[in-house]
Amino acid sequence: MRNLKLILAYDGTPYHGWQIQSGVLTIQGELHRALEKILNHPVTTHGSGRTDAGVHAHGQVANVATSVSMDIDALLRGVNALLPSEIRLLSIEEMSPDFHARRSAVAKSYQYHLWRSPVVPPFQYRYVHGVGYFLDQEAMDRATVQFCGEHDFTSFSATAAKSTDRVRTVYAASWERSDQEWVFRIRGNGFLQYMVRTIVGTLIEVGKGQIDPEEIGAIFLAKDRSRSGHSAPAQGLHLTEVEY
Amino acid sequence: MRNLKLILAYDGTPYHGWQIQSGVLTIQGELHRALEKILNHPVTTHGSGRTDAGVHAHGQVANVATSVSMDIDALLRGVNALLPSEIRLLSIEEMSPDFHARRSAVAKSYQYHLWRSPVVPPFQYRYVHGVGYFLDQEAMDRATVQFCGEHDFTSFSATAAKSTDRVRTVYAASWERSDQEWVFRIRGNGFLQYMVRTIVGTLIEVGKGQIDPEEIGAIFLAKDRSRSGHSAPAQGLHLTEVEY
Repeated sequence: MRNLKLILAYDGTPYHGWQIQSGVLTIQGELHRALEKILNHPVTTHGSGRTDAGVHAHGQVANVATSVSMDIDALLRGVNALLPSEIRLLSIEEMSPDFHARRSAVAKSYQYHLWRSPVVPPFQYRYVHGVGYFLDQEAMDRATVQFCGEHDFTSFSATAAKSTDRVRTVYAASWERSDQEWVFRIRGNGFLQYMVRTIVGTLIEVGKGQIDPEEIGAIFLAKDRSRSGHSAPAQGLHLTEVEY
Repeated sequence: MRNLKLILAYDGTPYHGWQIQSGVLTIQGELHRALEKILNHPVTTHGSGRTDAGVHAHGQVANVATSVSMDIDALLRGVNALLPSEIRLLSIEEMSPDFHARRSAVAKSYQYHLWRSPVVPPFQYRYVHGVGYFLDQEAMDRATVQFCGEHDFTSFSATAAKSTDRVRTVYAASWERSDQEWVFRIRGNGFLQYMVRTIVGTLIEVGKGQIDPEEIGAIFLAKDRSRSGHSAPAQGLHLTEVEY
């Protein structure tokens, strides 16, 4: 059996997220359909993790097992010819049998894009969250650094998240700002459901003066989702890289 | 009566072009619907020119007459709130009564985007034409300069184009190239239907070695559409600026 590592990019706008579900359009569902047509056998793919409805990816990773001996380049071209244009297979690599896209991952990086002028251009609106009003960037930066390090992220993840161990390590979190766009970058060993969007939503409330940057420590300790900010909308979130 | 100059950006993907037509989704149709709801009277807009189905704009201009005394900023916000996200009104300016978006225009600029790698990312595919194969850029550049100046563009416009005078002046035409993307920029006093797309299609055939750069002069002289290349697809074309 060959164990293939697939790297994918997708515009999440038209999909109900990564995870295959019957009756709705999903990225994994479209990927299975294309792979099965080319490989001519049923497939199971393991993604590095789910992305929610509307979330984009520039480097989502999945692995798939096949005994078909087709050349990697021909497979890449064939699958891309069958996938919708919103989903592209960027590369395929043959891995050892123990590689698993989720279990082998050691770090993930996300970006969140805020558009900082009141009119979001038609070429950007699918990929950014428009926030035209004043945000206190100094207060946001003081809050941002407090997300780095090892923490129990219960207060910053979906109440319904399945994980019982909610301790994660954030290696880096920062903002890169231009007049038009503010980009939040975060890299960590793993992320709970809605974690990035809840952190960004909280940072926006800090920027608006609704949450004091000094409160972040207490919000962590409370382990209570109701203490943090609203989740920022899915469309601004981009999974950029999964590291192994 | 106030004469308002509107500058618009749009993603042409979901529309049957600029020009209002009954029964199909058009940019002008959506604009009229939004303006009429806000101004509360029937409107007629004059665009600087039509853009075809699937063509994008970053600075299309139209003018509209109204006697409503509403503040410009309130009008801008109101119209954008009613327009679909694929169409944005970028600015509104009050002009003298003799301003006319088409007749007053003195120059227009377009860009055409070629994506130069075989896999077009999902975030670009709506806005570029994917051309992954080898193109001889030196030959293309030698052909490109020959489009500058005053010419009869009959060989490079739709056979069905209505204009009887097909002489236009191109002020500048050039390529800006990166590894991933080649951008063709052209500025002129006016453009016939399909003119930019036919020039780009011809330049692609020059790049592929199917048309010799030395033939361009003869193709102009022939005044015969069948002598030039195929029109490049609409999705790569962007109207960037209309000058007055």
